[in-house]
Amino acid sequence: MEVTKQNFKDCLVEITKDIEEAHFISIDTEFTGLTSERNILPFDTSEEYYEKLFRSTKGFIIVQLGISLFKKDPGGEKVKVKSYNIYTYPQSSLATFLCQSQSFSFLAENGFDFNKLFSSGVGVCNEKQEEKLRQEVKERQEFRQEQIKIRTSDEQVDTSSRNFLPVPENEKELIDNAKEKIQQVIDNKILEAKFEKLNGFQRKLMYELIERDFNNKVSTLTKNGDNYQKMMVVTSKRTLEDELKLEKDKIRDDENSLIEKIGIRLLMKEISKSKKPIVAHNCLLDFFYILTQCFEDLPENYNDFKKLIHRIFPNIIDTKFIAHSDHLKEFFSSTVLNQVLERLQKPPFKEIELEWENPYNTYSLKSPKEHEAGYDSFLTGYCFLALLDHLNVPLELNFEKSKALAPFLNRIALQRIALPYIHITGDEPKLNRTHVFHIKFPQTWQVSDIQDHFKNYGPIQISWVDNTTAFVALYNKENSSCVLKTIGKVNGFEIKTFADFQANEKIVLLKQKTLKRKNEDSESESTSSNTTPSKPEAKRKKKKDTFKQCNNW
Amino acid sequence: MEVTKQNFKDCLVEITKDIEEAHFISIDTEFTGLTSERNILPFDTSEEYYEKLFRSTKGFIIVQLGISLFKKDPGGEKVKVKSYNIYTYPQSSLATFLCQSQSFSFLAENGFDFNKLFSSGVGVCNEKQEEKLRQEVKERQEFRQEQIKIRTSDEQVDTSSRNFLPVPENEKELIDNAKEKIQQVIDNKILEAKFEKLNGFQRKLMYELIERDFNNKVSTLTKNGDNYQKMMVVTSKRTLEDELKLEKDKIRDDENSLIEKIGIRLLMKEISKSKKPIVAHNCLLDFFYILTQCFEDLPENYNDFKKLIHRIFPNIIDTKFIAHSDHLKEFFSSTVLNQVLERLQKPPFKEIELEWENPYNTYSLKSPKEHEAGYDSFLTGYCFLALLDHLNVPLELNFEKSKALAPFLNRIALQRIALPYIHITGDEPKLNRTHVFHIKFPQTWQVSDIQDHFKNYGPIQISWVDNTTAFVALYNKENSSCVLKTIGKVNGFEIKTFADFQANEKIVLLKQKTLKRKNEDSESESTSSNTTPSKPEAKRKKKKDTFKQCNNW
Repeated sequence: MEVTKQNFKDCLVEITKDIEEAHFISIDTEFTGLTSERNILPFDTSEEYYEKLFRSTKGFIIVQLGISLFKKDPGGEKVKVKSYNIYTYPQSSLATFLCQSQSFSFLAENGFDFNKLFSSGVGVCNEKQEEKLRQEVKERQEFRQEQIKIRTSDEQVDTSSRNFLPVPENEKELIDNAKEKIQQVIDNKILEAKFEKLNGFQRKLMYELIERDFNNKVSTLTKNGDNYQKMMVVTSKRTLEDELKLEKDKIRDDENSLIEKIGIRLLMKEISKSKKPIVAHNCLLDFFYILTQCFEDLPENYNDFKKLIHRIFPNIIDTKFIAHSDHLKEFFSSTVLNQVLERLQKPPFKEIELEWENPYNTYSLKSPKEHEAGYDSFLTGYCFLALLDHLNVPLELNFEKSKALAPFLNRIALQRIALPYIHITGDEPKLNRTHVFHIKFPQTWQVSDIQDHFKNYGPIQISWVDNTTAFVALYNKENSSCVLKTIGKVNGFEIKTFADFQANEKIVLLKQKTLKRKNEDSESESTSSNTTPSKPEAKRKKKKDTFKQCNNW
Repeated sequence: MEVTKQNFKDCLVEITKDIEEAHFISIDTEFTGLTSERNILPFDTSEEYYEKLFRSTKGFIIVQLGISLFKKDPGGEKVKVKSYNIYTYPQSSLATFLCQSQSFSFLAENGFDFNKLFSSGVGVCNEKQEEKLRQEVKERQEFRQEQIKIRTSDEQVDTSSRNFLPVPENEKELIDNAKEKIQQVIDNKILEAKFEKLNGFQRKLMYELIERDFNNKVSTLTKNGDNYQKMMVVTSKRTLEDELKLEKDKIRDDENSLIEKIGIRLLMKEISKSKKPIVAHNCLLDFFYILTQCFEDLPENYNDFKKLIHRIFPNIIDTKFIAHSDHLKEFFSSTVLNQVLERLQKPPFKEIELEWENPYNTYSLKSPKEHEAGYDSFLTGYCFLALLDHLNVPLELNFEKSKALAPFLNRIALQRIALPYIHITGDEPKLNRTHVFHIKFPQTWQVSDIQDHFKNYGPIQISWVDNTTAFVALYNKENSSCVLKTIGKVNGFEIKTFADFQANEKIVLLKQKTLKRKNEDSESESTSSNTTPSKPEAKRKKKKDTFKQCNNW
């Protein structure tokens, strides 16, 4: 089901009920950018990785949130599903956000409707912003109450000491005309007098006219005219009853406006409260943006981040991590979502029969809508069901108590680095970097020169730092210990173990934490060993999946 | 005419010719944000204003560029016009930019097609980026030349020392299948073998297969398959002639890609080179963004900025400045573009008869497309023609030599501050702040309390700093000298002349230059004197034209 600000209020009620009934909730988001920096190195620790990613993704936002809810009725056969595809866009007038131009182009090419997003996106705000919004509404309502008292009192206001602005020559016609029309309202000759296209100065003159010449014996109202221009409407003086009726409408408008502005935070709070398992695919950035936009800013410290995400979402399952795990990775040559699905549609995996709760709002695996968040959340949920089935875990089980699921709970797959995952609630795998070397080489060297130099140690993976330095990882780790002793000595070639490199670079790394690294050349790259492209060519050919194989090495 | 990357190359040729023939060029842009800060004070000097605006608009970009070209054939009666509406979007994959969420919503509500923008926008880059792009293309072409030499040489490559990757179990089927198909290509049984959906690791295995098992006796080619996935195509070995033909296509693709990426910079360079007068309405931000995106970063120093803008666009005319000038302001109660047009359509101004050069690509004043950059550039050009007519300046005249136009040349209207304009090539009006006072008052004070306190000095304009400080400007400047001597002394109320305030605050201002001011409450506001809203209410009611009347005070 597509959700925009037009139907969000109703959907919120429905989804809240769906959350209560669901066995698990799968989510996906589309966002405005992946990262604005490229200083992540393939052999970073999870702390280093988090800190770099956290800094380099600041400012990006979610533009679409997909939620799918899966349940099985007691005694029922099929799993029931419902999906929502929610356009989300900050409603605060001062809000600014960052975009990576490629991200929007990619989404546009995949049929994302930006016109709908910018005109009808559901709002989003974090905890502090919600408090502020509610406080503002409260103040506004109190102020209006005061105003009603003043406006409906019979007390004559003395304007003799007021310093009214002189009406300039070119505004005389407007004011004279207004005077006449307002008199007609007082004389009950017309119901209301409308004044369109007034600029700020003219509005000011009008209010002064009403105070000075009519002693506030009429009421005013601002309405939206054509072209988003405000229109001033002058009517006969409203009674207290009229004012209170008008105020009731305004309070209802305030409430609706709050729901529209707080938007998906209201939904995320429900999900958080429910403590239901949240399933997502390759979801670190999704959670980065959901936490930042709907809850609070990410902490600088990696362990604080783990505490925060666990406090808000205590049961996270990443299908990419499952597909990549030692238990299952033999089945998956790629863990990209649609390729995981493709594999799960063949034996030994079984087809999962689903039933759409609302038959008019369905997705189908046969007509994919990839990169629509709602569809991708459904796909993720489907993959999870197939994996659950393979692991013999019944949907009705409390996942926290499932032995088969325990190795997958609260672990999030990592991208582009050797460490395979983040473990939110426990220890993480030790990062072995003994097979990794940092090398310096002459500027004239090509990929093939580096490969030649390492040919005695088997296949290597090169991760560029710049055009004279790189990291080299050995495929045959058992060769690591003899490299420094036996590698050829050539002018301009230097080699260090990763540990030595890191000890030397600690001061530099420390500086990088506070100073934004500007060197665009520090892009890191893994190249294949026999296409032998020149170095700059290799960089241009960088693909998203470059580091995918890292985890196997 | 609508311009996207699909027709940009052809349009560039056409517009370049149009620029040569035009008497003047009117422009307009739509952009992603106005300002991310609200620390501009109404009585800032132009230097202070520039520095604040320059910092707070960094990162925003142009998304649509409108250009209209006006000419009159020798002896011709009517003015001929041509308009282009160009969608513009950075093509660099790493480019990030800033958006104000309100800006996109505003444009979407006005019918802006974002789907077209993100999928088909013409590129844009500055001088340095152009150099880098051209250098990259050069390197890529040189690399390809080397590769052709290697690929077409008859020399047998010795692969005995190569360390090929072992083929993992789950990839054996793929590789065995590929081996068979490639053999069929070599045996001339099939023309080509296509391999789709290969991930990075699989591509690597394929290249190794070709090198190891087929000793490079086939050629490969990468093509775009469905869903933006690259497809590897293996064909029989290409001859030198084939390779050179393929290379010729690639060079042509490189050229087209360069034009697409450099995009509107190519156009802007033509306009700059032509030194033709550029007419725009309220155009400071337009030029900020055009200079930054198409030429170079803005300098920090205000005078350097004036030098830069004059070097690139030596003849700028701002129609808002003309309408606001002492010569003409009596006619215009508002200088917003569509209101200036409305006024120019009535006497004493004359209707301007225009002829569209391309009758299939026209705008009409009768069916406005406000906030479409092409239309607004046309509107601006029309207004300028009507003003020229009123000033008795013939279109054919060299504007630089026109006495009637001299007071308007190279002056840009300013917004939200008391200073009316920037004078690019000369001295600027002295900023008189002797009628401005800085006040501190108890938090409980309302607008009416401040007004009461100043009632002896005539009407005032209040510009909020926060809820206990504000600037107060007197409408009757002659009362300024007696304020400090005669104003009531109340507990919690303090008053300073602007000069005293500034002397005290200099250290603070200096800090603001380096530290991003985070206080969101520092929004500055002018309120009308008798709607007496509460202070927070006043802030929420802030409109774009709030400071419009500043200039009259």
